[in-house]
Amino acid sequence: MAYFNNIAPIKYEGTKTKNMFAFRHYNPEEVVLGKTMEEHLHFALAFWHTITMDGADPFGSATMERPWDLEGGTELEIAHRRVDAFFEIAEKLGVKYYCFHDVDIAPQGKSLKEFYANLDEITDHLLEKQKETGIKLLWNTANMFSNPRYMNGVSTSNRAEVFAYGAAQVKKGLELSKKLGGENYVFWGGREGYESLLNTDMALEMDHMAKFFHMAVDYAKSIDHLPIFLIEPKPKEPMTHQYDYDAATAMAFLQKYDLTDYFKLNLETNHAWLAGHTFEHELNTARSFNALGSIDANQGNYLLGWDTDEFPTLVIDITLAMHQILLNGGLGKGGINFDAKVRRTSFKAEDLLLAHIAGMDTYARALKGAAAIVEDKFLSDIVAERYASYKNTEVGQSIENGTATFETLAAFALEHGDDIELDSNHLEHVKSVLNDYLV
Amino acid sequence: MAYFNNIAPIKYEGTKTKNMFAFRHYNPEEVVLGKTMEEHLHFALAFWHTITMDGADPFGSATMERPWDLEGGTELEIAHRRVDAFFEIAEKLGVKYYCFHDVDIAPQGKSLKEFYANLDEITDHLLEKQKETGIKLLWNTANMFSNPRYMNGVSTSNRAEVFAYGAAQVKKGLELSKKLGGENYVFWGGREGYESLLNTDMALEMDHMAKFFHMAVDYAKSIDHLPIFLIEPKPKEPMTHQYDYDAATAMAFLQKYDLTDYFKLNLETNHAWLAGHTFEHELNTARSFNALGSIDANQGNYLLGWDTDEFPTLVIDITLAMHQILLNGGLGKGGINFDAKVRRTSFKAEDLLLAHIAGMDTYARALKGAAAIVEDKFLSDIVAERYASYKNTEVGQSIENGTATFETLAAFALEHGDDIELDSNHLEHVKSVLNDYLV
Amino acid sequence: MAYFNNIAPIKYEGTKTKNMFAFRHYNPEEVVLGKTMEEHLHFALAFWHTITMDGADPFGSATMERPWDLEGGTELEIAHRRVDAFFEIAEKLGVKYYCFHDVDIAPQGKSLKEFYANLDEITDHLLEKQKETGIKLLWNTANMFSNPRYMNGVSTSNRAEVFAYGAAQVKKGLELSKKLGGENYVFWGGREGYESLLNTDMALEMDHMAKFFHMAVDYAKSIDHLPIFLIEPKPKEPMTHQYDYDAATAMAFLQKYDLTDYFKLNLETNHAWLAGHTFEHELNTARSFNALGSIDANQGNYLLGWDTDEFPTLVIDITLAMHQILLNGGLGKGGINFDAKVRRTSFKAEDLLLAHIAGMDTYARALKGAAAIVEDKFLSDIVAERYASYKNTEVGQSIENGTATFETLAAFALEHGDDIELDSNHLEHVKSVLNDYLV
Amino acid sequence: MAYFNNIAPIKYEGTKTKNMFAFRHYNPEEVVLGKTMEEHLHFALAFWHTITMDGADPFGSATMERPWDLEGGTELEIAHRRVDAFFEIAEKLGVKYYCFHDVDIAPQGKSLKEFYANLDEITDHLLEKQKETGIKLLWNTANMFSNPRYMNGVSTSNRAEVFAYGAAQVKKGLELSKKLGGENYVFWGGREGYESLLNTDMALEMDHMAKFFHMAVDYAKSIDHLPIFLIEPKPKEPMTHQYDYDAATAMAFLQKYDLTDYFKLNLETNHAWLAGHTFEHELNTARSFNALGSIDANQGNYLLGWDTDEFPTLVIDITLAMHQILLNGGLGKGGINFDAKVRRTSFKAEDLLLAHIAGMDTYARALKGAAAIVEDKFLSDIVAERYASYKNTEVGQSIENGTATFETLAAFALEHGDDIELDSNHLEHVKSVLNDYLV
Repeated sequence: MAYFNNIAPIKYEGTKTKNMFAFRHYNPEEVVLGKTMEEHLHFALAFWHTITMDGADPFGSATMERPWDLEGGTELEIAHRRVDAFFEIAEKLGVKYYCFHDVDIAPQGKSLKEFYANLDEITDHLLEKQKETGIKLLWNTANMFSNPRYMNGVSTSNRAEVFAYGAAQVKKGLELSKKLGGENYVFWGGREGYESLLNTDMALEMDHMAKFFHMAVDYAKSIDHLPIFLIEPKPKEPMTHQYDYDAATAMAFLQKYDLTDYFKLNLETNHAWLAGHTFEHELNTARSFNALGSIDANQGNYLLGWDTDEFPTLVIDITLAMHQILLNGGLGKGGINFDAKVRRTSFKAEDLLLAHIAGMDTYARALKGAAAIVEDKFLSDIVAERYASYKNTEVGQSIENGTATFETLAAFALEHGDDIELDSNHLEHVKSVLNDYLV
Repeated sequence: MAYFNNIAPIKYEGTKTKNMFAFRHYNPEEVVLGKTMEEHLHFALAFWHTITMDGADPFGSATMERPWDLEGGTELEIAHRRVDAFFEIAEKLGVKYYCFHDVDIAPQGKSLKEFYANLDEITDHLLEKQKETGIKLLWNTANMFSNPRYMNGVSTSNRAEVFAYGAAQVKKGLELSKKLGGENYVFWGGREGYESLLNTDMALEMDHMAKFFHMAVDYAKSIDHLPIFLIEPKPKEPMTHQYDYDAATAMAFLQKYDLTDYFKLNLETNHAWLAGHTFEHELNTARSFNALGSIDANQGNYLLGWDTDEFPTLVIDITLAMHQILLNGGLGKGGINFDAKVRRTSFKAEDLLLAHIAGMDTYARALKGAAAIVEDKFLSDIVAERYASYKNTEVGQSIENGTATFETLAAFALEHGDDIELDSNHLEHVKSVLNDYLV
Repeated sequence: MAYFNNIAPIKYEGTKTKNMFAFRHYNPEEVVLGKTMEEHLHFALAFWHTITMDGADPFGSATMERPWDLEGGTELEIAHRRVDAFFEIAEKLGVKYYCFHDVDIAPQGKSLKEFYANLDEITDHLLEKQKETGIKLLWNTANMFSNPRYMNGVSTSNRAEVFAYGAAQVKKGLELSKKLGGENYVFWGGREGYESLLNTDMALEMDHMAKFFHMAVDYAKSIDHLPIFLIEPKPKEPMTHQYDYDAATAMAFLQKYDLTDYFKLNLETNHAWLAGHTFEHELNTARSFNALGSIDANQGNYLLGWDTDEFPTLVIDITLAMHQILLNGGLGKGGINFDAKVRRTSFKAEDLLLAHIAGMDTYARALKGAAAIVEDKFLSDIVAERYASYKNTEVGQSIENGTATFETLAAFALEHGDDIELDSNHLEHVKSVLNDYLV
Repeated sequence: MAYFNNIAPIKYEGTKTKNMFAFRHYNPEEVVLGKTMEEHLHFALAFWHTITMDGADPFGSATMERPWDLEGGTELEIAHRRVDAFFEIAEKLGVKYYCFHDVDIAPQGKSLKEFYANLDEITDHLLEKQKETGIKLLWNTANMFSNPRYMNGVSTSNRAEVFAYGAAQVKKGLELSKKLGGENYVFWGGREGYESLLNTDMALEMDHMAKFFHMAVDYAKSIDHLPIFLIEPKPKEPMTHQYDYDAATAMAFLQKYDLTDYFKLNLETNHAWLAGHTFEHELNTARSFNALGSIDANQGNYLLGWDTDEFPTLVIDITLAMHQILLNGGLGKGGINFDAKVRRTSFKAEDLLLAHIAGMDTYARALKGAAAIVEDKFLSDIVAERYASYKNTEVGQSIENGTATFETLAAFALEHGDDIELDSNHLEHVKSVLNDYLV
């Protein structure tokens, strides 16, 4: 069954095209910095936003028109049709990876046992589709935030029974990861935090979260399938405070509990903004801890205080993010997952294509811009020159090579310190020239 | 020379008093939880806000009337008078500790050498005053953010010469700490961050900051005076991003660079808010890393985006903070430093007394409220009951004692997980009753 | 059918009570400033948050346990049971007013006609309950934001057909207001704003909104039932920008379109905060335009960027709000509607009582505190003294009586202006003493 | 005396140039939409940020290197050199307008009388320079926020004497405006607001502000020089709340006090952001009230909570602003004043040129982009199509022509309302295509 017969596979047509269903910038075969765009940009389609997101918001009901849901049948029958629709969309777009939560793909049924069975059945279908299309699983995860049982968290729940239930979900998730060849496994701790500190034992909850993660590592090893575990920081919403607040907070946690060997970060633009950071800051922080794993591509609205999960179109922000990714040598086994939802007013099925085209074009623009910045050494020259004193001067070398002490440095300062001449950063000029790199 | 002859030492007079120059709640001898208020509350007077802060803001010039500055004379003569005024205020208030930046107390002169000499002279005066009054140095620090040389940071400056100059300042600071018997030494990295990521090598800068801190530890050991080093997190302002963004970020850094044995945190209310956290959250975070060192007492305005450094009067916020401090068993060698400035419109010298009375009364209210919460087990009972399943149930015990695995937990969930019954948190009721604990 | 047989009507028992189901501060008969608390505090129960709110949030499904919904039957049968449950809760609490949206009380059916019929049937039931209990309708409103047809607004929709549909809803709403004796009629323009300016003609949309309001006034006159129309400002969420951003913005609109004779404001705490204002600021703004109509009682979280609609427990904020209401001589025909929802984790039916008790106690505390401020002239004396120069000096009188001109004032300034001596505001002291007025 | 002899007048050289001191986009003679860029873009140089801003921030002292200040002499001698430097910079840049506060240009002396005399002397110099260069005064204003006397406001001060002093300043300002041929006169009420509502009579203060404005109008008429008065909204900083919070708030005030005939708005990018709005929103709001007067060109940082006054380089934001200006038919007698300061680290005199080049290039990019949007009817076609139902349908026409009533609309809705079919907004696509209009 096909749902988009009237739309041809999306092709690159350039900016002059009047065809809405065409890439204006993303040209998979175009070579940038020695690799094709497709090699650089491991785009992934998110099952939840593409297939199950219905357009409801806290003040309004569902708006989305989804033909695959309208034909009726059992929940499982609908679930199978959704798989078909999902892969059809991925193929139309030429997207080669995908991501899902367990509850996105299969009905939860009336018991955990039934849920397991449904997951088995639908992942058979997914596996078949993977083989048929060559599309791969970038990562899967367990939705442990929607069900009422998780209202106080999972591993950080105040109830051991809930911790156990979450363990059962992740155990299955790791088995499905193995079955489908997933390269990463994600934790977004949407309810791992607190609603109020008044009734919360924060240290105990974080101890429990660490125990949970160690059990996940142990289980993954036991089944001979150790994906890269990815924590996805978000500061708040739905909880008042979430323990994986931002990249640095997650790194404080991973170090404290000796988890850095197994965990990296999956960073999201809108989550960065909600934490008060730019996306490039979060990427840079992860890089500095050697922990940049993968990204969730979207954007928010700087003037709104909640997660809008918009498709990315702000070229300057994404270009600076892409620049960090290039400095990182790419994302390794990670990718660019569109954790982005069409607006409630973009309720037509075709908007799913249009929105992904917008997002992919934005990342293509960003790749081209960031590549030019790298090739021209526009920013790297500025950086090299600014920090040159650590290489060119004796005092700088002594700091770098570890021979400096407060005594030697104070002696230097007493002799030479009163005459330091600084250079202007000329930031206004730098920011102006940057604009000429934006595509 | 005395400046407040017309005002008697501030005494506790209770809430019925009409005397502005009296404590309404702070009663040093009153016993709370087995200790006097004075023993609980190691208040410290900040030299900068008390003496040198002039009431200027980005849109307006100085307003403060400070008699000790008006008599003229050389910079050093003024500096000596300021010391007298400072200790007079501390004694009027019955405050037993103080804090200062190097530049607060002594003129910087025309060279580092001259600055050193001035510091030596003024710290002689401070030492004499300490002996005379029994007032102690809670901590000192180096102002390494006001001078133009530090426009790009100190240890994170792009210039090695600036790094050296900062080293010379901290070296002297540690020597003065030894001379004056300081128990802590503080780093507030006001310019240790970036103005723009475009021209910044973040990882290199953080490496440099860690080198600087290790040199500080080494030097302190070498002079046989190892105070507790305290990092003071702040997210931004003056820089766009500061590396010690919040408590968790500071802990990520300290762990990465193996500095946790020597460094704790000095947490400030207004800085917490600017980072998007409550003050009690930051204190709790520090506690969970065993790193709660000292606090900077003030408050901001939740609706403003900059550091207003107001004297604390919001009782609910400070009570919840004090509750964390009680749970921590107090602040150890730390204290409660009023990093708070009188409003620009509170420009009379007497406002310095009124404002500190307000702040000390607020902490006294908070102590009484928090103590009652502890004595009544109001919150501890709620917490104990909520997490009871980790003690009372087999599955909970297996998680706590480390025998649980994903297999055992999944087996449990398959058998019992579909019927978990949760309890309401009744948070509305808890928050309502909390109000009856506020003093 | 009764749902709370096990809980006795809520009575005042004071702060020593251990009974959760008792008022600790709200004592209806207690006289404050010459009136009983009940006369001061026209509390109203909101149908939506009390009865139909299910505990879902953007990341989680419904949690609420609502016995009146569980017995099954047709939508209309459930709707009737909900009315019974609603009035039972109001009576338990001793609340004398209520508020509703049309869609809260009656199923929308398959057509507008069917919706009208359902509304007629259920309002018969409401009317009967009103007579039986003496509980009155504070205001009703039309939900014109949840249905997909309103995704782009109602009167500000880009589609005339949608404007017409909204007119049909409000027309019915006014008829129901007449039937039930409603004293106010509210507009909360949840979708009256824009998602993006790119596709929006803002001036046209505001013209349309004004036309809609004028039609409402005309229709109300035509049926001989002219309630006070109330606009409820909110800055954003669900839309990116809402036209009734805050009190001042609403007043700009009402003046521009000559609607001030018929419209006042219904102000909500959490909406004020989201717009960057304190609640007392919004109340004061409305007062200064003689437009304070009614309030929606709740609170948010200063550190979160969305509408949390919590029950009010922050005593200091509500006391300052109550102070404004006292300065306004009360709310006239307005009241205090609890536009507040129990937390998702307060999912038991009994939490509805506990949460309203918390809210009512908070307003009782606030009333007592604000009344003491008024009786002691604590703030009014400060204000009178601060502005005295406009009464006591010739130059001040000339400004007040309109005889001053720039010439006369410049002449005064040239002669006397260089020697103005100001007074300190002593704000720290004022804020400290304020705490002793908080109950 | 010339300060920039080593730098040639700035010319357009295009994006390929390696010359930092060249326009990359601003080409004064280039024709866009039938007018030259210079005709479209009435750039103005701000005296304060260009000449007197010293690089101090709340945590650091002055950094700027300003040769015209270093030669010593009396305050008046320095003031004259500053005038020369200012016009030299304007001429280098080819900027044809300028703006100033009274205190920027002349020393305040020891009395108002002395200040008047200094202003007379320096404005003679300015007038001479205007004649010599052809550069015109866009607007002047009085700085009534820096002096301590204004700590509680000017017209909203609690002290009548301060009101009078402000009147004397504005009276002189209007006389200077006449002398120099200023076309606008600006009020930025930096202290016209409150620090705390506790001690404030808001309604009285706003009455006073209105009296002040009426006196200004009266005086301007009396001297036969009625410039366009411009209010410059800003929400906060330095005050907690400023009465001219945003465009809508200012319009509420102007309408209430019958001032709309004389006052328009001077809107600033960074102020818009601090109030929670986009710049294009504020411009659009002003347009909808027919009150768009002039703009202050700069930008802030969406993640910072204070006024950073950066030179504008964010092309997307400025393009959307420029689009509003084109829709307004330009700014009339208004202009584009760079209320922007070089970063504290851009401390070289040459940075003043580089930063203005960056800002002017950004506005040139924005003009080209916005013009293309207009020429292609990219957004106007979308708007026309979206609202077509108000033109094409009977029901829509009835709303527009005033014949619709709630009865007619309800009748329509009952017949046709259940079948409204909406269109998708395709916002993701629109935002993606917008990027191809950015220059």
